[in-house]
This record gives sequence, C-alpha cells and structure tokens, in this order.
Amino acid sequence: MSQSSDLKAFYDEAWGVLERGVADRRSPARHPTFATVSPDGQPQARTVVLRAVSRAERTLEFHSDTRAAKLAALGKTPLAAVHVWHPRHKLQIRLLCEVNVASGEAVRDKWEKVPDMSRAAYGSVPSPGSAIETATSYQHAPVLDQFAVLTCTVGEIDLLYLGDQHQRAVFKRSDGWTGQWVAP
Amino acid sequence: MSQSSDLKAFYDEAWGVLERGVADRRSPARHPTFATVSPDGQPQARTVVLRAVSRAERTLEFHSDTRAAKLAALGKTPLAAVHVWHPRHKLQIRLLCEVNVASGEAVRDKWEKVPDMSRAAYGSVPSPGSAIETATSYQHAPVLDQFAVLTCTVGEIDLLYLGDQHQRAVFKRSDGWTGQWVAP
Repeated sequence: MSQSSDLKAFYDEAWGVLERGVADRRSPARHPTFATVSPDGQPQARTVVLRAVSRAERTLEFHSDTRAAKLAALGKTPLAAVHVWHPRHKLQIRLLCEVNVASGEAVRDKWEKVPDMSRAAYGSVPSPGSAIETATSYQHAPVLDQFAVLTCTVGEIDLLYLGDQHQRAVFKRSDGWTGQWVAP
Repeated sequence: MSQSSDLKAFYDEAWGVLERGVADRRSPARHPTFATVSPDGQPQARTVVLRAVSRAERTLEFHSDTRAAKLAALGKTPLAAVHVWHPRHKLQIRLLCEVNVASGEAVRDKWEKVPDMSRAAYGSVPSPGSAIETATSYQHAPVLDQFAVLTCTVGEIDLLYLGDQHQRAVFKRSDGWTGQWVAP
C-alpha cells in the first residue's frame, strides 16, 4: 500500500488484499480475525480461514463446524466484525458484515470440494469445546451435517493505512461505497 | 510451540508469547486484535499495540485516544476479547478480559513515558472517525486529557495449537488457572 489521495484506489487496494488472502496461503489476509457477540453479550474473536471473496457482491465466505460457539453467537446476533492486519501493506481492514449461515443439503456442493484432510475440522467427537481427559482425547468424524458455510455480506469497510502519515477512510453500502476520509 | 501433554507448559508458553509481544516489535503478539461490543450491540475489532503484560497479575495494558469508538464500547460493556495468532508457533491465544479505563492525572506518569513520536496517536484534531475533506485534513495535538490506559484483567484463556494434531485448552480464573483440555 502506498500513500494515496484517491478513495477509489484505497478501496480497490483493500479488496486486492482480501482476494490475495484466498489465493495465497501465506498472505495475512488468509487468516482474518472473526469477531462476534456471544448470546450473553460478550465479545468473542477467533482466527478463521478466508475461503472465498466476491468483490462484485462484496461477500466473504468462511467455513465452520455447526456446533462451534460462533454459530451460537450468530444465531442471536447475525453480525461479524472481520479484521485483517497486513504488516507489509501497513493496512488494517475492518469489515462489518451480516452473516448468513447455510448447512445441510444446501451446501453439499461446497462440502464435496473440501479436501479430505480439511474435512477433519468439521465433526470432531466430542463437539468443539467439550472437556476431554487428555490433549488428544478426541476423534474426527467429518459429516456434511456438521459443516456450515458462512456468507458474510459487507455493510461497512473501515480502512486504516499506518504509513508515515496515517490515513483512514470509511466506505458504506448505504452511501453507495463512495467512501469518506475520516480522521485516524 | 511444540506438541505438549502438559497443561502448565501450554499455559506458560502462551504467556511467554505475550511477553515477547511487549519486548519485540516484530512479534505477532505486538499487535493483538481487540474485540469489543459497540453500545448498540455490534461486534467491533481493531489492531492495538500491546504495551505491557503482567503474568503474575494476569493483566495486559493498551493505550488509546479517549475519544476512540472502543472507549464508548467499553463504557457500556467493559469487556474485551483479545486475540493473537502466532503463525510460527501455530498458536492462537484468546483472552476474555475485564477492562478498566484510566485517564487524566491518574495516568500522567505513563503519559510522560510515551515518546513524542508516539504521542501523536492521542489527540488528533478533529477527533478519530470525524469526516474530513482530504486524507490529510487533520492535525496532531497530543494532550494528556486524551490519553487513556486500558488495563485488561484476564478472566479466561483459550489456547489452540494447530500442529499436526490440534490441541486446545481453556484456563479460567474461576478454576484457579489449572486448565482443562477441550476438543478443538
């Protein structure tokens, strides 16, 4: 990221970073932080893997075990703050998203594209977060029924470039994504 | 981080990573993600700089402009989920914290230790998030009155090691930090 006086270029750069996160396993955007509000109103944050991005539709896709705590959180508050910090670009990307959760037959096509090795992440026994006796007292039993696809529709983007002179802009769906510079 | 069958070692490793974040500007723990709940109940997340850690008191310290959105969030819900993903250690650290905010004369001693260059982060004009005409239409006017110290007292630690065999443990203040293995 270079210093920019152009809102459109700033916006495009951020989507480029997100797209790179899907294509490149080593990109910092590969592993965003996904923040939610728990059913009892507490903040939660965890690393997720960015599976797909659509710049045109302004959506991001993540996968989860249906029994994970974030699904319970999304059941009550279907919003996520998705956060990427890209050290080399000196760029912080913050996305506020509405999250749609799909599972079962509706996501069978995506499930069938998940490599066997990766499927282990969906369907551990006992369920994620259950107390176990030793570090390894669990098995993998991946099944379609425990695979959820989270489609995040971006409503707001807050970009902060931490170069020699910081710059920050906010882009909203409600303003047609034209963007607004704001004080950092 | 290496595979461990010892809860105590797992716990100690995480604190070691956090302490390294204070000492080493290049450590991933230098820049945790700080998630809060906005006054209207939405998830928020942003990068912060880890300023201090006390393993003995189980506290983390961050600094902020008093007018930042996270301070409004903490005024309503004084909790933060602090998140670190350390790629080399393959370790995710999640901390649920109660946050105490101090400002004014109570933090003068800390303010006086903030280098001049860093002070620019506290007291931009107009205030953080205000609409401005161009990317650089703001000034720095650092003053003690706009400097806040956030002391985060950890109540729960959730550690996830993503090695060949994942392992996860939860440590709680309420169980005396003895820890519990849980399914990943």
